[in-house]
Amino acid sequence: MTPDDPQTLARRVQHRIDHLTKPLGALGRLEALALQIALWQGTERPALHAPQLVVFAADHGLVAQGVSAYPQAVTAQMVANMLAGGAAVAVLARRHALTLTVVDCGVATPLPPHPQLVVAKVRAGTADSSLGPAMSAAECEAAQAHGAALVQRLPGNVLLLGEMGIGNTSAAALLMARLGGLPLEACVGRGTGLDDAGLAHKRRVLARVLERHATVREPQAVLAALGGLEIATMAGAVRQAWRERRLVVVDGFITTAAVAAAAALEPDGALQATRGCVFAHASAEHGHARWLSQLGVRPLLDLGLRLGEGSGAALAWPLIDSALRLLDGMASFAEAGVATATAPPAEQGG
Amino acid sequence: MTPDDPQTLARRVQHRIDHLTKPLGALGRLEALALQIALWQGTERPALHAPQLVVFAADHGLVAQGVSAYPQAVTAQMVANMLAGGAAVAVLARRHALTLTVVDCGVATPLPPHPQLVVAKVRAGTADSSLGPAMSAAECEAAQAHGAALVQRLPGNVLLLGEMGIGNTSAAALLMARLGGLPLEACVGRGTGLDDAGLAHKRRVLARVLERHATVREPQAVLAALGGLEIATMAGAVRQAWRERRLVVVDGFITTAAVAAAAALEPDGALQATRGCVFAHASAEHGHARWLSQLGVRPLLDLGLRLGEGSGAALAWPLIDSALRLLDGMASFAEAGVATATAPPAEQGG
Repeated sequence: MTPDDPQTLARRVQHRIDHLTKPLGALGRLEALALQIALWQGTERPALHAPQLVVFAADHGLVAQGVSAYPQAVTAQMVANMLAGGAAVAVLARRHALTLTVVDCGVATPLPPHPQLVVAKVRAGTADSSLGPAMSAAECEAAQAHGAALVQRLPGNVLLLGEMGIGNTSAAALLMARLGGLPLEACVGRGTGLDDAGLAHKRRVLARVLERHATVREPQAVLAALGGLEIATMAGAVRQAWRERRLVVVDGFITTAAVAAAAALEPDGALQATRGCVFAHASAEHGHARWLSQLGVRPLLDLGLRLGEGSGAALAWPLIDSALRLLDGMASFAEAGVATATAPPAEQGG
Repeated sequence: MTPDDPQTLARRVQHRIDHLTKPLGALGRLEALALQIALWQGTERPALHAPQLVVFAADHGLVAQGVSAYPQAVTAQMVANMLAGGAAVAVLARRHALTLTVVDCGVATPLPPHPQLVVAKVRAGTADSSLGPAMSAAECEAAQAHGAALVQRLPGNVLLLGEMGIGNTSAAALLMARLGGLPLEACVGRGTGLDDAGLAHKRRVLARVLERHATVREPQAVLAALGGLEIATMAGAVRQAWRERRLVVVDGFITTAAVAAAAALEPDGALQATRGCVFAHASAEHGHARWLSQLGVRPLLDLGLRLGEGSGAALAWPLIDSALRLLDGMASFAEAGVATATAPPAEQGG
């Protein structure tokens, strides 16, 4: 068999969807989702197996400027909590049969070894981006290479993105402003829970950071100057996943930053992001909904989540998997001997 | 131990939620959901077990007036498809470990016995409500008694509602108009896929039905005159579930009609509906979103589904269960040794 061209494949999959035992279009967005994944995998019978939820963790030098409601030590403490099974993402990974891996991309505090912890540490947290670039070009490249290598070793064909890093809504907001060309006010939110004064302070700090790196526009340089080690590692992971045609399930604001960075680094990145990614949910973090809309994507869930960790990706997973199970498992009208909608009721009514 | 009063219990559950290792409120609507179910079950540690997805099936005499795009025979054919495992709800029940039961509340065509089929048939389809009441008072009562008895025999503590019945968006729209006091145009949709002409015809037929039963206002009489056998059976099931403090997961437009009828039949029905039900999704069927808003409830999902069968309830199930797993399984800040948000970063930063 020769593989179909995308148009032919799309027609064949749509034909199958339209002949399943349900009114036309009655499964709503799950139908579009099944079609998207079929085209991404290049097969009429798409399937996802061995789903991997990977939490990318790192610290941010910028927290020295007081941009987060939580102390930096929380990054390492929360990684330990994930590995001990007490964090939200750990509970959800268990509930939804997702393999959980935590990657130390650059946590400031040393972490004890753990079977679920991968050490891919470039340095112990980024530098303070209000004083200079968060990473050198070499550090940023090393982080991306770690992400790509990690994905190459992962089983399965679907990667769910999660992250942990006190201060990382600041890095993501900076990337949104610079890569997305959006005004800073549209990008900055309360993160883990800043009050009004804290939010105003965060805005002022981030404005200073953008000003300091005003001339930095090339995507790799932007990622190094404003990003984070977990975001750079994720960007490398996402690009590798795209190369392998793994499906990427994007969580919230920070993971969207990583996808946006990955897209900026690929010649047809915007297309890859819409074809190879499923956006799990609209985060309550200010800016996320607008960013998704700028990227031209629509999230599956809208539950007011703003936790990160991959929690939204984990919650969307059963919907994504269900879309494919329906495509695979439902009977067609012909198979089930069910009458279709063509004849008026008076001719066939029981 | 004496049971807490609801206010004390609410405070205790909220305290637990607020001390889990996450920023305050970061789990969004899942936090409200966990609190709701805790209060409904009267316990700090709510849990759902042995979830039962019950599909209530029946036929509608009104289809003789040409209100559906599909012939009446499809009701029985789709029940057979569910029992054979090829219908969407069957695929989803397998995927999400839900026990699936189909109840023949009044399917016109005789159905062969099947281990998952419960026969609770009052009559072989309702009468044509454009000519007289759909059911007699005794038939409507019998259907409700069947629903209550069925729930009493079910294991577990959560009931997911599903339905099948060609013509039942008409019955639901009539109930919405009469019980909800809404204009008919707000209540009538395309059902399984009427075109514009079909929709206009359906509107005219339903207007005639409402006119014919213009003086019928008492809820039991409304249910008998305008409802369906599956809707009446479901209404009985819902009221019994409320009595037993089972959680009810409501699917789409038709199951909302059953809950609205159940609420109209209870002295504090509106409260029971908001406290004892979770509304799975906003159906794409015209009228559903407005009805939910009139009932003062917010659905969990908005995926453009309009299939019925219980498919939306099945898809929402993992979210509902996850909310309780998080409440039960997450560590508190104290348990995990994670620092809280009180101290400024400069004092504790790692």
